[in-house]
Amino acid sequence: MELIRSVSGMQHYSLCEKRKGLRIGFVPTMGCLHEGHLSLVKLARENSDLVVLSIFVNPIQFLPGEDFAKYPRPIKQDEMLCRKAGVDLVFYPEESTIYSTDHSVFVEETSLSSGLCGGSRPGHFRGVTTVVAKLFNMILPDVAVFGQKDAQQSRLIQRMVRDLNIPTRIILGPIVREADGLAMSSRNRYLSVTERSDALCLYQALESARQLVGEGELSVAPIRSAVMTRLSLAKSAQVEYVEFVDDRTLQPVSRIEAPVLLAIAVKIGTTRLIDNLVLSPA
Amino acid sequence: MELIRSVSGMQHYSLCEKRKGLRIGFVPTMGCLHEGHLSLVKLARENSDLVVLSIFVNPIQFLPGEDFAKYPRPIKQDEMLCRKAGVDLVFYPEESTIYSTDHSVFVEETSLSSGLCGGSRPGHFRGVTTVVAKLFNMILPDVAVFGQKDAQQSRLIQRMVRDLNIPTRIILGPIVREADGLAMSSRNRYLSVTERSDALCLYQALESARQLVGEGELSVAPIRSAVMTRLSLAKSAQVEYVEFVDDRTLQPVSRIEAPVLLAIAVKIGTTRLIDNLVLSPA
Repeated sequence: MELIRSVSGMQHYSLCEKRKGLRIGFVPTMGCLHEGHLSLVKLARENSDLVVLSIFVNPIQFLPGEDFAKYPRPIKQDEMLCRKAGVDLVFYPEESTIYSTDHSVFVEETSLSSGLCGGSRPGHFRGVTTVVAKLFNMILPDVAVFGQKDAQQSRLIQRMVRDLNIPTRIILGPIVREADGLAMSSRNRYLSVTERSDALCLYQALESARQLVGEGELSVAPIRSAVMTRLSLAKSAQVEYVEFVDDRTLQPVSRIEAPVLLAIAVKIGTTRLIDNLVLSPA
Repeated sequence: MELIRSVSGMQHYSLCEKRKGLRIGFVPTMGCLHEGHLSLVKLARENSDLVVLSIFVNPIQFLPGEDFAKYPRPIKQDEMLCRKAGVDLVFYPEESTIYSTDHSVFVEETSLSSGLCGGSRPGHFRGVTTVVAKLFNMILPDVAVFGQKDAQQSRLIQRMVRDLNIPTRIILGPIVREADGLAMSSRNRYLSVTERSDALCLYQALESARQLVGEGELSVAPIRSAVMTRLSLAKSAQVEYVEFVDDRTLQPVSRIEAPVLLAIAVKIGTTRLIDNLVLSPA
C-alpha cells in the first residue's frame, strides 16, 4: 500500500495510472475509519482497478464551535485498516497544503443544500463541495463512493458532478449499523455509556416510521408524531430536525407518494448524530 | 477538423486522446472569432498535441439587459477560421444541453472578482468561472489559453485552477490590436463609423499612461488625470471605470511600485469596451 502526502505527487500518480488505462476508485474520508468506510472501500474495489482512500479533516466544512480541533485523527490505526481492506493508496495530505492563505474559490450548491443539515450548519456544504471538487482534481477518480449515511451530502455531490460535468461516476453505499442498529459514525466514540444507549433512539425512531409506512400509513403527520415520540424517550436527546423530503429535490412533502427521505439530526449530550431512511409507498 | 456538439462525445474524445498520451490544448471562446482568438490558438498549438476550441455563448455570464441575445454567432465563418488556423476540434455544444433546468452548482471566486468588471457586472464572473470549470471537465485540457485582453477574467481563472487544483496549465496570450491600436473584440462590430473612431480613446489613454510611467511618473493620481483627459475627448465615450490595481491581488494602489494593472471600461455609445495595460516601475 502506498502513502502519498503531496498534492503534486497524488496528481502525478493518478495521471500515470490513468494513462495505463487503469480505473481509479476513490473513497474520500476524514479518517477515524470504521466498518462504514470499509464497506465503501469494498464498493470502490468492485468498480475500479485501483482504490485510493483520502484522509483529510477539512477545516472549511466545520463551523466555529464545532469539533474540528478535537475530531479524532488515529492515523496509524487508519493505515492498518486500509492495508487490511486492500486499499492501494492512502492520500493523507498535510493540512496546511490544501488551502492557500488567500484561498478564494468555492464550489457552492444553491438548492439542495439549503435545508436539513444545511439549515443548521450554514456554510458546511460549501466546504464539502469545495473540498470534494479539489480532491476529485487531485485524484481524478473514474468512480467515487459516498455513504448514504450522509444522505444530503451524497445528493449534493451527485448534483455537483452533474452540473459541473465532472467525469466521475458516483456510487452510494448503504448505511452500515452496529448490531443494535446505531449507524456507524466516527463521532460515536464521543458518547458516554448512557449516551450510547440513548443514541439508539435515532434508529428506533426511523424503524417506527418504516413500520407505519409498511402498514399503509402515507400521511407524514402521524409518522412524524411517532418519530418524535420515540426520540423524546431518550433523556439526553435534543432533536435538531426531523424532516420528510422528496428524495430527489430534498423539498418537504406531506405525503409518501414518491421515495421520501426521512432525515433526522439529534444531539445526544453534546454529540450531534444524524441518520436517515428512504420511505417508499408499497 | 472535427466538430463535436454533445458533451458526452467531447468527454469521450478527450479521454481517448489523453489515454494515448496526447496533450490537449484548449481555447474557450464565445465565437465570432478574430485575430485575437487565433493568436490564442497558435499558443495552444505550440504547447500541446491537439487543439480544441469551444464556441459557447454562456448565458449565465450575461446580466439582464446585456447583449446575450444579440451577441453575434457567425458559426460558418468561425468554422472556416478554425480550419485555417489548424484547430483540430471545434466543440460547439447545443446551448440547451449545457445547463439543466434545475442547475444549482456554481464556482465562485470571492476576492479578485469583486472590483473592476465584477463591480459593474455583478454575477458575471460567477458565470465565467462556472462555465470554464464545466468546459475543463468536458475537454480535460492539459493547457488552456486565455487572453490578457480580459485581464481580470484571466487572473480569476488562474486563481480557480490553483484553488481547485485543476490539472491544467494556464497560458495568457497578449492583447492583439488593430493597426491603429484598438484592441480586437467581437463587440467592435457593434460600433458605428464615428464610434469606431472614438473607440480609439481607450488605447490612446493607456498609451498616455505608459508614456508618463516611462518618463518616471510613479504616482497614480497624475496618471489617472491624463487617462481621464484623453478619454473625455471622445464624444460618445462614457467611462465606467479607470482602475490602477496590484496585478496580483487586484487591490487598488496609489503608486506604481510593483506591476500594476491599469484596467479601463468605457461605453462607446451603447457598446461596452474594455482594455488594459500592465505598468511597471523602470
